[in-house]
Amino acid sequence: MNNQIKVAIVGYGNLGRGVELSILKNPDISLVAVFSRRDPKSVTTINTPVFSLDNILDYKDKVDVLILCGGSKDDLPIQGPLFAEHFNIVDSYDNHAKIPEYFENVDKSCQKNKKIGMISVGWDPGMFSINRLYGEALLPDGDTYTFWGKGLSQGHSDAIRRVNGVKAGVQYTIPSNDAITKVRSGVRPTLSTKDKHTRECFVVLNDDADAKKVENEIKTMPNYFEPYDTTVNFISQEEFDKNHNTMPHGGFVIRSGKSSDSVNQVIEYALKLDSNPEFTASVLVAYARATHKMALKGEFGAKTVFDVAPILLSSKSPIQLVKELL
Amino acid sequence: MNNQIKVAIVGYGNLGRGVELSILKNPDISLVAVFSRRDPKSVTTINTPVFSLDNILDYKDKVDVLILCGGSKDDLPIQGPLFAEHFNIVDSYDNHAKIPEYFENVDKSCQKNKKIGMISVGWDPGMFSINRLYGEALLPDGDTYTFWGKGLSQGHSDAIRRVNGVKAGVQYTIPSNDAITKVRSGVRPTLSTKDKHTRECFVVLNDDADAKKVENEIKTMPNYFEPYDTTVNFISQEEFDKNHNTMPHGGFVIRSGKSSDSVNQVIEYALKLDSNPEFTASVLVAYARATHKMALKGEFGAKTVFDVAPILLSSKSPIQLVKELL
Repeated sequence: MNNQIKVAIVGYGNLGRGVELSILKNPDISLVAVFSRRDPKSVTTINTPVFSLDNILDYKDKVDVLILCGGSKDDLPIQGPLFAEHFNIVDSYDNHAKIPEYFENVDKSCQKNKKIGMISVGWDPGMFSINRLYGEALLPDGDTYTFWGKGLSQGHSDAIRRVNGVKAGVQYTIPSNDAITKVRSGVRPTLSTKDKHTRECFVVLNDDADAKKVENEIKTMPNYFEPYDTTVNFISQEEFDKNHNTMPHGGFVIRSGKSSDSVNQVIEYALKLDSNPEFTASVLVAYARATHKMALKGEFGAKTVFDVAPILLSSKSPIQLVKELL
Repeated sequence: MNNQIKVAIVGYGNLGRGVELSILKNPDISLVAVFSRRDPKSVTTINTPVFSLDNILDYKDKVDVLILCGGSKDDLPIQGPLFAEHFNIVDSYDNHAKIPEYFENVDKSCQKNKKIGMISVGWDPGMFSINRLYGEALLPDGDTYTFWGKGLSQGHSDAIRRVNGVKAGVQYTIPSNDAITKVRSGVRPTLSTKDKHTRECFVVLNDDADAKKVENEIKTMPNYFEPYDTTVNFISQEEFDKNHNTMPHGGFVIRSGKSSDSVNQVIEYALKLDSNPEFTASVLVAYARATHKMALKGEFGAKTVFDVAPILLSSKSPIQLVKELL
């Protein structure tokens, strides 16, 4: 198909591979290239050609949308502003505190050649953000609750693995059922992140490690674990390899509000994801479609999921959507 | 505030009253008038002046958005096209099968004076439609399930009340827990509307009525009750007045799909509403805000919730939304 949307990926880790998988499910989109900092010969994709990131500018007229699949800590702060000068980009920048600054930087680059920089796409930020906005707009007299999990937290798993004596480890964030039940009931409790979640760790020890000491060091680690109800389970490498090799995640955004003095209304959005990176990738791909449509209409600058009308995400025609989904 | 959005209501029943209540919660919007077919003196609002519908055109330059609160069967098919010629309108037209035809008719009127006709706003059609679209766009390899209830169905309650011997009656649509559990698990069963719901009726009999006959007539009523698992409970007028005087509703939109061959992802949107008309009204008011913003940008024609970027629904500034909700 000649009218397919031409997408390329920068960075081929779990997220990049997820984008490649997602595009296989979207026949109106074609993946024309993967760009990597690694030696292209060392990168094995499903069926997409790999090129060196050094040559990416040679492709600026052959790519409609570039999906950045690097990390928010080191990659995106550089790559977002760099590539938004020459490409329409979509990324999953998720450092909440620094999003306004990142937005500014990407926007400045976008203005140079009228490109679109669609930032912070995924599920949180992303679909959860949209639902926080919808909830507040529909029920202005209310409270919004975001719960995460059950899911594997990359940052907390990394923190465990830095503890002396730990050979392998993962951490699952678990939302509190009590808190969710209370919020769903229409009560509007005051809940800290700690009240809403517990943390469960699965750790493989080095042969000479002191289990008590490792457990204590994890549980008292400030910010990461210290204020939380944390459980540490020691398991064998075999069990670890068998049961903790996937990246499930999910969560809930609940808006509880009153439409009049004694009338409660509760809106809930929930995700149950077998693979966090594959779902994030699926969202990136749908927003790549929207970005292309917005670019065709002459829009440019930094954008977020808030700026995207639902209709732009679909491959179906407006009339088909009204008939089938409205 | 002089920069408030000026809204007026056509029709003051449960929905119109809900819009008045919702606007009290939205300080950036002011309700300038209620228009009614009834004698204005006979209509008691909370604190909004009432005018005869006959004089509505006198107000066409004093109203930013007109919210039509009439019924989809008899009122909106006439009022939508009639008023969209002179006002930006928002309505909750919900006759799914006839939406494409209604869209066309409203669109034609909108073109005459470049007005916006925002049709079929509410929760189904409305928020549920948006979630059906999001679900399909994010997980193209999947199935969407819409469940309604637990909630009072006006149409089925009306049908019960037409049965000989029935003094008063209501019908609640109840979603099947088994079906919801199955869908949430990531299995993708084939389910008819009948498989997904049961119907529960509460009936007050006339003194001389034959309960067995009434029950049988309800349960065998084609389309309304016949294919469904229906329960009929006979109660006293006192119990009816005490326990069945509110209009709760709600439901679920669940998208279950695969991002790759063995990876399930489940998205769920759920509403639990103490008052169906008040929630629908809250949605109408948020979309009135969006309609006003779109009109200021020069947009016109018939629109649906699919055309509205989330950002347009909020009274907050773009930068505030990025900081607080993204």
